[in-house]
Amino acid sequence: MLALAAARLGFDTCVLAPEADSPAMRVAASHIVAAYDDEAALAAFAKRCHVATFEFENVPATSILHLQSMDLVVAPGPRALSVAQDRIFEKTFFAERGIACAPFAAIEQASDIVAALARLGAPSILKTRREGYDGKGQTVVMSADDAGDAFERVGRRPAILEGMAPFVRELSVIIARGWSGEIAAYPPGWNQHEAGVLRRTVTPAPSSPETLAKAVEIARSLVEGLGYVGVMGVELFEMADGALWVNEIAPRVHNTGHWTLDACEVDQFEQHIRAIVGWPLGPTHPMARAEMINLLGEDANEWATIAADSGARLWLYGKSGAAPGRKMGHVNRLTGPFPS
Amino acid sequence: MLALAAARLGFDTCVLAPEADSPAMRVAASHIVAAYDDEAALAAFAKRCHVATFEFENVPATSILHLQSMDLVVAPGPRALSVAQDRIFEKTFFAERGIACAPFAAIEQASDIVAALARLGAPSILKTRREGYDGKGQTVVMSADDAGDAFERVGRRPAILEGMAPFVRELSVIIARGWSGEIAAYPPGWNQHEAGVLRRTVTPAPSSPETLAKAVEIARSLVEGLGYVGVMGVELFEMADGALWVNEIAPRVHNTGHWTLDACEVDQFEQHIRAIVGWPLGPTHPMARAEMINLLGEDANEWATIAADSGARLWLYGKSGAAPGRKMGHVNRLTGPFPS
Repeated sequence: MLALAAARLGFDTCVLAPEADSPAMRVAASHIVAAYDDEAALAAFAKRCHVATFEFENVPATSILHLQSMDLVVAPGPRALSVAQDRIFEKTFFAERGIACAPFAAIEQASDIVAALARLGAPSILKTRREGYDGKGQTVVMSADDAGDAFERVGRRPAILEGMAPFVRELSVIIARGWSGEIAAYPPGWNQHEAGVLRRTVTPAPSSPETLAKAVEIARSLVEGLGYVGVMGVELFEMADGALWVNEIAPRVHNTGHWTLDACEVDQFEQHIRAIVGWPLGPTHPMARAEMINLLGEDANEWATIAADSGARLWLYGKSGAAPGRKMGHVNRLTGPFPS
Repeated sequence: MLALAAARLGFDTCVLAPEADSPAMRVAASHIVAAYDDEAALAAFAKRCHVATFEFENVPATSILHLQSMDLVVAPGPRALSVAQDRIFEKTFFAERGIACAPFAAIEQASDIVAALARLGAPSILKTRREGYDGKGQTVVMSADDAGDAFERVGRRPAILEGMAPFVRELSVIIARGWSGEIAAYPPGWNQHEAGVLRRTVTPAPSSPETLAKAVEIARSLVEGLGYVGVMGVELFEMADGALWVNEIAPRVHNTGHWTLDACEVDQFEQHIRAIVGWPLGPTHPMARAEMINLLGEDANEWATIAADSGARLWLYGKSGAAPGRKMGHVNRLTGPFPS
């Protein structure tokens, strides 16, 4: 979807990815099939490009540094990537910015869990520090007795224990920041998950205007604190009293922003391209209320029914295998004029 | 833009064109650089595809027949293409459907012009029968004295002499027809030309509701008469009394429909893909009034100014040379809610 947005604006895209059947390669002017840390491939890639970005936060930060060492402009930069890749770095960054988040403790061994539970309370959530997404690498720790088993369940890897966030709703803010410091945020969406995977985002979120403004303010503080360039997704927990805790940041275009593809004049993908190439950012006030529903695994087999529904805007990603829970596409529905 | 629309719906595109730097190839899963009548290339193309279409009406109709002989589904079919490629066939088809158009005469030699002028009146317009577009291959014949020179000016080729249409406005209808016979038309646009080239399309056109309905009805009659599948552009002249003459048809997505890219839930490109692959057609009622302005030649150098205008949705085609009058991109502006 980034490559499609770039093409609209007259840019050619080169895709580097380890998968030869990457959907992005099928809409790119050129591509390189290689590991993200293949230095010869990175050199060839740098020669072809004027600016590089990523849409997957597990690209090694060292690869970004390597591209920069060859004078390629890369956005977002390695700092945002390394903060987003490590849940301890991430939470520490939130604390530095004075932004509330769930209480947490770094976990190196099972006994650390027992000690942390005393402070955070049970149940708490144990997550690997790195490379978790869509609920993977996470487990609930019910009590101190479960500490050893829980550490096994996340693969005995460096982890974080997080206190439960007593939230009533998850929000996300899709925010862009340009090289000049210009910022543009879309109205927050309300995210609904099933089995740890995003199922649905609804905009506008049914929160108070004050809470929605505060969510955007938090997102602004985060992109400014990182000197961020590009689109970032910021997930937040809304408490019953309207307080917000930031959950996590994604240094890329974000699934919870896919509703912008049909509801906004400039969607998050064009916005990201505008930001990284140094163009002014586009408008973010939506043309319509929207609801985005992910097509997970075999949901995508319903394409014929969805295509026949005049209210459904269908996006299929052209992925080859529909494993259970895999994001195969999404559907946007426009549900009326957006409140001004 | 067709390849971008196809990608959104999960389809891969293969582009066959004689130009190695075709913008479409840079967003297609594969491509073949070959002449449109290269039989080996057509055979390779047919093997890769499930359905073929074209976005350029000067593809030889024989190539379409050749693809069909290899059991490839092609839409629109060769009949629409051959009617649209020859101004005499086209006008004859209009007459068969009982649809008004400018009076005309077939011209094989300069003396035919003299005879026809007596019937059609002077000035009239001399156009080559085949391969004219954007005002090329056209000349005004001021009087019988000019007949010989005028025939030279169009290259002494088989031509058509058309009486002047005393129109107040040019309209176009972008209409789609599916394999099932389902039809969907966008509201007519008002087209403004400069030096024979489309400069601007405005929707809704400022014509009476009756005239707009009649324009759509004419377009419907034409796609039904051709058994057409896909999106067609129908250009019409509106007279002072609201009468309509059809000017010409384009058997493809059309420049005067580019406003749908930003103003409609399903734009003309997705609509064309839906039609040719046998999907139900999408909604055509616009979300917004729109104005489309072509970026001709060096207009596109103004991209930085346009990109900074929050009301301008910019499309750049990635063409390599900005010859004067060449269509390098376009800008859509949304100008308020569309009347219901």
